[in-house]
Amino acid sequence: MQNKPKIDEMLSTLDRELPQALSRLQEFLRIASISTDPAHAGDVRKAAEWLCDELRSLGFQADVRDTPGHPMVVAHSPKGDRRPLLFYGHYDVQPVDPLELWDRPPFEPAIEDTPAGRVIRGRGASDDKGQLMTFVEAFRAWKAVHGALPSDLVLLFEGEEESGSPSLRPFLRENAEELRAGIAMICDTGLYADGRPAITTQLRGLYGEEIVIRAAEFDLHSGSFGGLAANPIQILVNALASIKDDAGRITLPGFYHGVEDLSDELRADWQALDFDAGGFLSLVGLKHPVGEQGRSALEMVWNRPTFEINGITGGYTGAGFKTVLPAEARAKVSFRLTGTQDPQAIREAFRAHIRAAIPADCTVEFHDHGASPASRMDISDPAFAAAKQALGEEWGREAAYIGAGGSIPIAGDFKEILGMDSMLIGFARDDDRIHSPNEKYDIESFAKGARSWARILAALA
Amino acid sequence: MQNKPKIDEMLSTLDRELPQALSRLQEFLRIASISTDPAHAGDVRKAAEWLCDELRSLGFQADVRDTPGHPMVVAHSPKGDRRPLLFYGHYDVQPVDPLELWDRPPFEPAIEDTPAGRVIRGRGASDDKGQLMTFVEAFRAWKAVHGALPSDLVLLFEGEEESGSPSLRPFLRENAEELRAGIAMICDTGLYADGRPAITTQLRGLYGEEIVIRAAEFDLHSGSFGGLAANPIQILVNALASIKDDAGRITLPGFYHGVEDLSDELRADWQALDFDAGGFLSLVGLKHPVGEQGRSALEMVWNRPTFEINGITGGYTGAGFKTVLPAEARAKVSFRLTGTQDPQAIREAFRAHIRAAIPADCTVEFHDHGASPASRMDISDPAFAAAKQALGEEWGREAAYIGAGGSIPIAGDFKEILGMDSMLIGFARDDDRIHSPNEKYDIESFAKGARSWARILAALA
Repeated sequence: MQNKPKIDEMLSTLDRELPQALSRLQEFLRIASISTDPAHAGDVRKAAEWLCDELRSLGFQADVRDTPGHPMVVAHSPKGDRRPLLFYGHYDVQPVDPLELWDRPPFEPAIEDTPAGRVIRGRGASDDKGQLMTFVEAFRAWKAVHGALPSDLVLLFEGEEESGSPSLRPFLRENAEELRAGIAMICDTGLYADGRPAITTQLRGLYGEEIVIRAAEFDLHSGSFGGLAANPIQILVNALASIKDDAGRITLPGFYHGVEDLSDELRADWQALDFDAGGFLSLVGLKHPVGEQGRSALEMVWNRPTFEINGITGGYTGAGFKTVLPAEARAKVSFRLTGTQDPQAIREAFRAHIRAAIPADCTVEFHDHGASPASRMDISDPAFAAAKQALGEEWGREAAYIGAGGSIPIAGDFKEILGMDSMLIGFARDDDRIHSPNEKYDIESFAKGARSWARILAALA
Repeated sequence: MQNKPKIDEMLSTLDRELPQALSRLQEFLRIASISTDPAHAGDVRKAAEWLCDELRSLGFQADVRDTPGHPMVVAHSPKGDRRPLLFYGHYDVQPVDPLELWDRPPFEPAIEDTPAGRVIRGRGASDDKGQLMTFVEAFRAWKAVHGALPSDLVLLFEGEEESGSPSLRPFLRENAEELRAGIAMICDTGLYADGRPAITTQLRGLYGEEIVIRAAEFDLHSGSFGGLAANPIQILVNALASIKDDAGRITLPGFYHGVEDLSDELRADWQALDFDAGGFLSLVGLKHPVGEQGRSALEMVWNRPTFEINGITGGYTGAGFKTVLPAEARAKVSFRLTGTQDPQAIREAFRAHIRAAIPADCTVEFHDHGASPASRMDISDPAFAAAKQALGEEWGREAAYIGAGGSIPIAGDFKEILGMDSMLIGFARDDDRIHSPNEKYDIESFAKGARSWARILAALA
């Protein structure tokens, strides 16, 4: 691509073709690609094949690549002389329960007019199918205007992001030569709270674990055994409650090793973002920030590690009441990690803490649900300045360098396995309800997202 | 009944008719009368009607009496000149989940030969349909041998015992004149651990409660909100863990008010029972007694109050993993009470403890699942000595006065509302798995149980 990219033509093409782009997204959203639920494995593959067909129709050389888990979609544009760019997104989605809290079937997406503007509602609309398609529509516009795809693009779309990406690292290792590029573009993050465009330069890591504590061989009558026999729910509850102290600090030995305090510079930048924690929480019906004392809200979510109980179950939970001492109790827990915290060391400390709480005649079983460290980008790469500039032009506001509380292990994996930095640019909003009932994506995010990528592709040409 | 009761004829009749008695019991057990589950309300009524028909066929004047909840079955034998006796049992049963742990459908009972002897297996076999039928078969034998039922019997069979007996106290009040008798016979307890016949002279009370803690309006992404937003599971877990201290003592203010230490006499009696806690726990796959330090095992189960978490649920508990902060968390908890502990005062203390743990932007909801004090019988009533004697003759071993960890609020209700003492005699065994999968009742318990009642009826004639 020697000639100057035709930005304005691409933008007007994207505007004109928006209705078709939205119906393509709706078609994609109708595929129930829930990667954590084995019952939906077929749907996950179906989503991969749909995506692969789309990319082929644009002239990409694309394949669905099998893995021990769900497949990867890998695509290439023709080789050329520009710095190779890798684009990453994921086509799998979160489970939908509690289903009764959805206002419409989660996999029958629709465009709705809301007081806050038009949205497309359905599971995956924002996380991550809608965001992923902003890439695809930008490529489509480029080709429509210039007659050919941008050269030297590598596309990697994953189907296991919502279930800990078990196959990703092996896949990156086995295909390192093919996938290595100058820099990776990852579209799985959000605009800053007030709708300002942003490039995420740090992400928390994630370590997830399921615990199963077993006591008696079967549920016991609490009248005959209560006071004498071990209650696995009580054991679980005691062990989980003692992980945080009254100040909200995590008490596992060595847990804070590697946690870095904010640089004065970053602290100043984040202060300048003037984050309204109360307003942010009010979006979900809450008021008061919890967590460690003496930390700013942004620091809590972007730069501090956490411990969360994501699910718990044990004993009788049906209608009415049952006076049992249950045979087992289970919990799913996760830690968000920052700085250079070592997920393996924290797993050891956590498991040791739980094991120490188990009486001699009870047992505990652990199920690993993935562990990845936090990541921090090197923003000295000129691509960051170029993208920041392009985003500012599209959104009419200066783009911010921000952090993210979520975990996108892929960024760390790209760095570690492919020696490649990542640029995290996304257009989700805080009220998108990702992972929750009634997930949505703003039409504005989708439209200006695709326009943003067209500008960034041009800026990096 | 002026003539001396024909004990030997009744016993040989019971032995001869055992097969028919067992098929009647199986028919009764096929009715899925789960009182806690609204879906089974029709089955509960069906069980009441089945029982009523049985009693009418024996010459009782019997009715199914409606209540705001499940019905009562009330029956009378002809009036005569003996001290009226009331017989109480319950025809409702516990829920059956986890269903997959049953070796056979819970409501398709069968007689099985086991290494420990023949048993009848099915939900309710022991608690309480099998025990209730020991009354009925004894009455049947009496009538077969003497040509008429024993006079002055009042039968009260309840359908809500497993769901907190909401209708019972009002029913006793409204029908006090009709139901008041000299003493009540309650068949809902067990033999002593080693199979020795026993009369239970004290029972623990029970206070049950469900807690629902709500935080955000919907499940949140733990990446976007973790560290900042309240997690209702964490709140619940912290509140529940702090109810007991490290020594296993319950920390609610005033909780131990009214708890009475054992009399030296009772302590000596119970010591003499030479209870093998390890052996008792080994029946269910456990080894080590838990609970308060410095208390004997029998004391723990019979004379000390407890706090138990019977069920807990919140967040994502399905296959795989979901990094949510859930919108709500729930627990079902119960306290076993002893001495003169006041259930209402303890409810207040418990609710206050939970409320104190709820942040300003979260809510808690309580669902009352019944509250009844402990009860202790007056064994100076000569009926106790007579029954003790009769049991000794049937079982060939001296009967013991014991306590029970379970709650049979009816005994306290009879005392309070009808001014009537109760005699708790039952034939269940510790390995009957009541409230658990694969519940069973020993054929020996059923056969000798009916024989025991025939002897007791004669002894009290």
